[in-house]
Amino acid sequence: MFASLQNDTFLRACLRQPTEHTPIWLMRQAGRYLPEYRATREKAGSFMGLATNTDYATEVTLQPLERFPLDAAILFSDILTVPDAMGLGLSFQQGEGPKFARQVRDEAAVAALEVPDMDKLRYVFDAVTSIRHALNGRVPLIGFSGSPWTLACYMVEGGGSDDYRLVKSLMYSRPDLMHRILDVNARSVAAYLNAQIEAGAQAVMLFDSWGGVLADGAFQQFSLAYSRQVLSHVKTEHGGVRIPRLLFTKGGGLWLDEIADAGADVVGLDWTMNLGAARARVGDRVALQGNLDPNVLFAPPQAVRAQARAVLDSFGNPAAGHGHVFNLGHGISQFTPPESVEALVDEVHQHSRRLRTAA
Amino acid sequence: MFASLQNDTFLRACLRQPTEHTPIWLMRQAGRYLPEYRATREKAGSFMGLATNTDYATEVTLQPLERFPLDAAILFSDILTVPDAMGLGLSFQQGEGPKFARQVRDEAAVAALEVPDMDKLRYVFDAVTSIRHALNGRVPLIGFSGSPWTLACYMVEGGGSDDYRLVKSLMYSRPDLMHRILDVNARSVAAYLNAQIEAGAQAVMLFDSWGGVLADGAFQQFSLAYSRQVLSHVKTEHGGVRIPRLLFTKGGGLWLDEIADAGADVVGLDWTMNLGAARARVGDRVALQGNLDPNVLFAPPQAVRAQARAVLDSFGNPAAGHGHVFNLGHGISQFTPPESVEALVDEVHQHSRRLRTAA
Repeated sequence: MFASLQNDTFLRACLRQPTEHTPIWLMRQAGRYLPEYRATREKAGSFMGLATNTDYATEVTLQPLERFPLDAAILFSDILTVPDAMGLGLSFQQGEGPKFARQVRDEAAVAALEVPDMDKLRYVFDAVTSIRHALNGRVPLIGFSGSPWTLACYMVEGGGSDDYRLVKSLMYSRPDLMHRILDVNARSVAAYLNAQIEAGAQAVMLFDSWGGVLADGAFQQFSLAYSRQVLSHVKTEHGGVRIPRLLFTKGGGLWLDEIADAGADVVGLDWTMNLGAARARVGDRVALQGNLDPNVLFAPPQAVRAQARAVLDSFGNPAAGHGHVFNLGHGISQFTPPESVEALVDEVHQHSRRLRTAA
Repeated sequence: MFASLQNDTFLRACLRQPTEHTPIWLMRQAGRYLPEYRATREKAGSFMGLATNTDYATEVTLQPLERFPLDAAILFSDILTVPDAMGLGLSFQQGEGPKFARQVRDEAAVAALEVPDMDKLRYVFDAVTSIRHALNGRVPLIGFSGSPWTLACYMVEGGGSDDYRLVKSLMYSRPDLMHRILDVNARSVAAYLNAQIEAGAQAVMLFDSWGGVLADGAFQQFSLAYSRQVLSHVKTEHGGVRIPRLLFTKGGGLWLDEIADAGADVVGLDWTMNLGAARARVGDRVALQGNLDPNVLFAPPQAVRAQARAVLDSFGNPAAGHGHVFNLGHGISQFTPPESVEALVDEVHQHSRRLRTAA
């Protein structure tokens, strides 16, 4: 059993219930921009050493909360744990992104794919439970996974990509193989997120980091359809408590209407989308999360505060039925000065309270 | 004096006049995917050696037209010639993108910027005239430049970037300096495009390759406003002949309405935008150019043809007042099989004729 929640602002905003301020958390908030993170990472020896060790994962998840009054914690892990558990061999070279030892590019590799035994991901569920205990009810804990399409990008490319040439070549040449990969991914991700919820995650987020690289038409068929499949199989409540489900599509603004109908409670937006226009478009179907450009955090504190107010003002006063969760439009940069985060969190809390009083 | 034009389909489509088929050309059509280009590049020794030599630039510009019945030629050059002429020292390392020897990051560097003497860009205007003669009226010649914002990205970053951290840091910290860079760029680009028109360019295109990385609000202020400034100073006709002006913003779909009012005759779109929806949105304000995903060209010819038809069908039958220029949504990949381009050009011509007959 876990301690009862002291700050449920984030969960209420996700469910479009009234809140006293706009909750804020930051994608990749436990990360390299914090010296204490870099120290723990050093002790762990490698990124996967950090992510697979329950104590380290717990330690770094809580680090940003010690510095800033954030309204949610997010599991420290990686979006690619599922294909790693499928046996593709995930590693992180120093200074580079993720790499898979084995790529999924031909009929045989696709045929060999299976939903992994969730026991191979036990380290993630153990971390969730450990973090939940360590949080002791301060703020809710968010679990997450990469979306089926985003996982497929890495599985086919074998790592990051500039042009998504290999994964799109497969998609346009052999859509049958791509659909099989995506179906295995969708079933795996649904099982993975449900196990995180059972282990203690109080909300879950699907990162469709590369949905926005697809053409109109292909996005709906190869990305959104499988995010929808995941969401239709992920628990909406656990132990009688609602579990909000968030879907973030980087570069997905053009498809906001369709994304809002995918079954998520919250849609995450990047900075290219006007938040007021987005709110008008989705109405009371979903709450919105976002959408400050992370590069704003390289400006002086007064400019950070002004840009934070602009995002809040663009959303407007959150009346009943319109939830807003403040976030960046992408993960925080490793070069970010922590003082900028301090100014940001403070301004979001202060200004969003003012907006509610002024209304 | 130049020979009279035999195929003006592209120019008519730009001006939303009736055409017998949908014209097609490809961004970066004279490029590394062609073995004959690589041979000329080898002779020239370097990319800039190629771009600054009138004979080589003429040779490679015409190469794709020898293979494929494309409806336009585009000057072989680079989007960064203008900041090079400002004295920033452009070079291309083997296998890497462009690099500037000197970056524009502080007050002193910004203050030193000036509209370059157009004589330093004489090699470009000479190439335009030479190509125009060599084309001998086959198809129209398009001139081009990077947009003020896109040039500024490279000038501040000193080269390509994953996150645009330096240029956005400057923009958010010192908007006054950024506006000064953009104003110098806009005046330079306008003079540069006008000189290309005087040298023989029959249409000009502004590449806002990195407009789409900006936040809503910042895009309008730092990118679109300066593209508009350029377009308001670029000739709309020369020697009594209309000169269509094209504006391409990668990732600009969300701002299509505003882009359509920037003063261009044609708006270029990438593959994320639904072309039918875009056409409905812009009405008869502008023609549209695009928008096949270049990665489609890695599929077998039959799949290439099917995807080309899907783009044409999405736009629909070009009735009076709705022009469509077929293109990719980004430059063609160096790994593209030339046979795919053959299938694409043929299908666009055939299917677009069928669409007109069926109507």
